[in-house]
Formats: sequence, C-alpha cells, structure tokens
Amino acid sequence: MLKDKNEQRTSLSELGEFGLINHLTKYFTINCESTEKAIGDDAAVLEFSGKQVLVTTDLLVEGVHFDLSYMPLKHLGYKAVMVNLSDVYAMNGTASQITVSMAVSNRFPLEALEELYAGIQLACKNYNIDLIGGDTTSSTKGMLLSITAIGEAEKKDVVYRNGAKPNDLLIVTGDLGSAYLGLQVLEREKQVFKVNPNSQPDLANYSYLVERQLKPEARKDIVKLLKDLEVKPTSMIDISDGLSSEILHICSQSEVGCNLYEEKIPLDPQMISTCEEFNIDSTTVALSGGEDYELLFTISQEDFPKIKGNPNFTVIGHMTDKTEGANLVTRANQKVELTAQGWNSLSND
Amino acid sequence: MLKDKNEQRTSLSELGEFGLINHLTKYFTINCESTEKAIGDDAAVLEFSGKQVLVTTDLLVEGVHFDLSYMPLKHLGYKAVMVNLSDVYAMNGTASQITVSMAVSNRFPLEALEELYAGIQLACKNYNIDLIGGDTTSSTKGMLLSITAIGEAEKKDVVYRNGAKPNDLLIVTGDLGSAYLGLQVLEREKQVFKVNPNSQPDLANYSYLVERQLKPEARKDIVKLLKDLEVKPTSMIDISDGLSSEILHICSQSEVGCNLYEEKIPLDPQMISTCEEFNIDSTTVALSGGEDYELLFTISQEDFPKIKGNPNFTVIGHMTDKTEGANLVTRANQKVELTAQGWNSLSND
Repeated sequence: MLKDKNEQRTSLSELGEFGLINHLTKYFTINCESTEKAIGDDAAVLEFSGKQVLVTTDLLVEGVHFDLSYMPLKHLGYKAVMVNLSDVYAMNGTASQITVSMAVSNRFPLEALEELYAGIQLACKNYNIDLIGGDTTSSTKGMLLSITAIGEAEKKDVVYRNGAKPNDLLIVTGDLGSAYLGLQVLEREKQVFKVNPNSQPDLANYSYLVERQLKPEARKDIVKLLKDLEVKPTSMIDISDGLSSEILHICSQSEVGCNLYEEKIPLDPQMISTCEEFNIDSTTVALSGGEDYELLFTISQEDFPKIKGNPNFTVIGHMTDKTEGANLVTRANQKVELTAQGWNSLSND
Repeated sequence: MLKDKNEQRTSLSELGEFGLINHLTKYFTINCESTEKAIGDDAAVLEFSGKQVLVTTDLLVEGVHFDLSYMPLKHLGYKAVMVNLSDVYAMNGTASQITVSMAVSNRFPLEALEELYAGIQLACKNYNIDLIGGDTTSSTKGMLLSITAIGEAEKKDVVYRNGAKPNDLLIVTGDLGSAYLGLQVLEREKQVFKVNPNSQPDLANYSYLVERQLKPEARKDIVKLLKDLEVKPTSMIDISDGLSSEILHICSQSEVGCNLYEEKIPLDPQMISTCEEFNIDSTTVALSGGEDYELLFTISQEDFPKIKGNPNFTVIGHMTDKTEGANLVTRANQKVELTAQGWNSLSND
C-alpha cells in the first residue's frame, strides 16, 4: 500500500553498532535543563532539583503492535514516543527525557532507521524531550522498539490512580474510539490491496480516524491547562486500552464505584458515520477500542465551575460508593456492569 | 543439554497481560528510600533529594545475546540485571531501580517466566534494587528483554569517561577474558550434545569460566571500596565489549593516549589453561572477549598509594599525551596500536 520510494539502501552491518547510534542521533539536540549528560557515557546523568521523578516504559513489537505495511516508519517513531509521554502526563507531570532501544532484523536498511529516528526527533522537538540513551541490536525477525520516558513533577502535583472519591466527577479529554476505527479502515485497505495491488486507497473520508491511529498526540496541553485552571485531579490515567478498562483501574485502585453515562461519551462525527458503515456499535468501540491516548480523570465537585464549558473536557459520569459497582448507564437509562473487554475482543478475526 | 524438568505448563494466554504482570511481580518488595511508587500506576514515582539521577538501558535478544539451550532462565534474569547495574556503577553511582520489559513467544509457559523473574528478583535482593515497572507483550519469535536501570550519585561523585589526564594510571578490577571463554566451552558442549544427546557435559575444569559467563556479578563493591579509600577516578567505564574497545572509548573521550602493558593484564589460571586447550591467544581474548562486567578506570598518580597492593585492583598501564596514540606494549616490549576488535571478531564461525 505504502511503497518505499527511497532507492538508497545502506546495510546496517556497514556501520557497526556505535557508528549506527552516532549516525542516527547526531542531529538530536539537548533542550531540558534537567539533562546533564545525554548519550555517550555508561549512563545518562539527570538533575531534578527537589522534584519527583516519573518513569514509564513501553514495548512495541512489529506484527503485534504495528504493521509496517500501512504504518510509515516516521509515524511509528513519533507514535512510540507519544505512547510513553502519555503515561507521564497521566501522572500530571512534565516529560523530559526518553531512552530508545531497538532490535531490527537485517531486512531494514539504514535509510529505514533514519525515517524512524526522524519521527522520534520530531516528537522530541514538539514535546521538548531529550533523547538520552538507548541500545541498538539485531533481531532474528522484525522490529521491536522499547522506550522509557522520564518526567518530573512537584511532589504535591503528582496524581495517582487511587485518589478518586464518591461523588467526584469523571472527565475525559478529546474524543474516543477514532484510533481503533482508523486501524479498521487501514486493515480493510490492506485486504483490498492484497486482492488488487493496483487499487489506490481513498482515505479522504477517514482522514481524522487514520490520523488518530497513525499520528496520535499525547495530551501535554492538558497538564498545563489543569495547572492554569488550578485544578488538581483526584485521580488520573491515560486511555490506552479503552475507556472501560481505564475506568475499572481507577475504581479498583480508588476503591470506588462509578456511573458512566453512555450519552455523554464524546465521539467524533466521522467516527460515528464510520461505525455505521462498518456496522459496529460506537459505544462498544469507545469503551474498548483503545489507543486514544486521551486522559481520564476525576475531580471533586467543587472544581466543576473551573472546567465547565471548556471544550477540552467532557464530564461523562461520576464516582459512587464501591458497593454500587462500576456501571454504564445506557441511553435507555439501564444500568449495565462495566467490563474490560480490551482491544482484542473487537478484532475481526 | 539443560532440560526443563518442570512438567507443569501454564499457557500465558490464560492469565492475560495484567494477570501475568501481577503474578510475576507479587513477591517483589520495595527496599529503596527513593522509590515512592513502584508498579501499578501510569508511571513509577521516585524521589532523589539533591542527588543526580543515572539512567541506562540494555536490550537482550534470544539468538543474538543469549542461547537458552545452555543459559538457564533464572541465570538469564540475573545476568540481564547485572548488565545494566554495571553501567550505573561505572558512573560511580548507586543503582536503585529497574524496569523490565519482555516480549515472549507463546512457546514459553508461565513456569518459564517464573524462573526468569526468580533470577531478576534474586538480583534485586542481592543488589538492593527495586523493580518499578515494565511491559509484557507477545513476540512473533523468541524472547527479548529490555531493562532500564536507574541510579543516583552526588553530583561531585559522578565519574565520566572524559576525565582521564596524561600520566594517570589505568586500572582494572578482577580478571578478564573468562566470560568469553566460558561461552566457548558452552558452545563446544552444545555441539557435542547435538552429535550425541546422551553425552553428559563435564564442566568441572571450567567452573570459573562458566560462572563468569552465566552468572556475572556487577561491581557494586568497587564503588563502595573507592569511596572508603577516598579515591575518585578521573574516568571510568565498564568492560562489556572487551578491554581494547573500552580503553579506546576513554582515550577518545578524554583526548589522551595510553600505554597498556600486556604482561600486566590480569588473567585467571583456568582462563590461561583453557586458552591453551582451545589454542587461542589469552591476550587477544582479554582485549576483545567482552562480557566481563569489570570496571576500568583511571586515577591520578598521587592516589596510587591508596590502592597499592589492593587485590581488587590491577594497574595495567598509564595514560599519555593524545599524540602518542593508544598502544599495547607487548611482552617483547614492542608497541602495537590498540584496535577495537569487539566480540564478533573472535567468534569461531
């Protein structure tokens, strides 16, 4: 579907490991005050005077988490960083550094890795992150990326999953389910392409969905906005596995229940029309789709005036006593127990 | 060669990702004061009041970095942690936390991963390290481990690779080359086993070599010893790729030359006799073998009385002006330019 038009192919073995790292990272600059020493020694050296340090890590495997037949390498690099930054922002912190480790088979020429690192570099630039280390090695099959993100926050600002209280409002940023539908559209085009390699995919009607899948943005802006509004959430989590699963994490760690209102779940119009086209239920997709990288948080009711009417936020429910359980209140006003289906339950195979 | 006698096999898919992480990490305890929150939220939260933070990461791939036909999984878990801690100690710091990410194919039952995590847990216990996060995913082939280690040091104590000065002494801990020879012995036994599966390997004559390969220890003790002796190295690096390669890193980053004396390189008697048996040159193995996880450092001459006679240290040369280059002074008193062969150049294939 997406063909590599680049005809230059430089074998990785020509460079060796050190040559490769130097080549790929030579245009990265250092932007954060907390970075004392980045790449080039046994370990990176960071300084977070008086702040707490946040650490999160994610592993992305070709054939499991991404498919290079429709995921351009530059997008993959960008997205792999976003996945990690999103976890730092979900702690109400500022992301500052990443390490990137990569295992690649020799089917990838240098030019492919340059594309990947161009995406990583763009993410670092847009989010003011420093690349401080990593490891590069060969794999017997495919590509694997392991990224660790490091961030900082004042101790008083860190938000955990376990602070939600009954009557707190449940709020989500952005809209849900589009990334999952973007994947369905790309998978469908891939099947069409297999049957007829001359077909040209027309993705114009799905541009938002495809962008949410291929180039998600982590919600750094929300952390700043909450600070500006002087709202500290009582609990927060990022939505990587689908809304249900994340709500259940907050409920279980905070020992509360919740009522989530189906009619309040924010959906994009393109997402709704594509659900109709695919004949799948939009609520199910929002609840279980995953990969949205939005933030889900709870605030105490007295903070409601501060966020009221802000287009970044949608109040989708409220927390209850633990004994009431975690429920979806449907449009027909029926209470249904929330279950974590996760991503796989929706797959077409 | 090493058969899994454990007959219980629990499929990973029975547990799911969260169940698996919970199962594998439930017996890990938190030991470090700097660990505020370990596993269980979007990110771990650490607090290093006034100290600098050290971060290093390594990726180990089955079939590239380890061979499970002779590497027991518990040893693999232990070694994977050591590889990372060694980098923290090479900065003259204290290691405090690790994240462990793992991609595994479904050929591994739960019991295999329990063994792996038992090794990781033992390493954490012996070195006073907290497991604070990670990611677990399936792979299409084999096993891959990505570990990030975090440590701390007072700013004044951090030792980089770039501080060596002409006339500084070049010092190494422990002895060199044994880990590489251990690998050669294990590879030979694997070939014998392939031809005759009933043969029982007799490794008694190679016990030290095999232990250096399968269960290396990172030199936490050296960081403490240097502190007790009130010696701050002018530069330091860990020996993971072989002595030559590491000396050249110090020379290039410190902009100095060096004379390394062949006769001074510390070798274990078992290593020497096995080199004779394999008909390979022991100096070559020490220079290029790798995986020794010893520390290589430079000190100013005035610190020499403090380390003189200490059995942990061997003075193997001295730094010179950059214009003199990096040289090996052979037993025949000839100067030969040092080159970084690295690990692969020694392989038998």
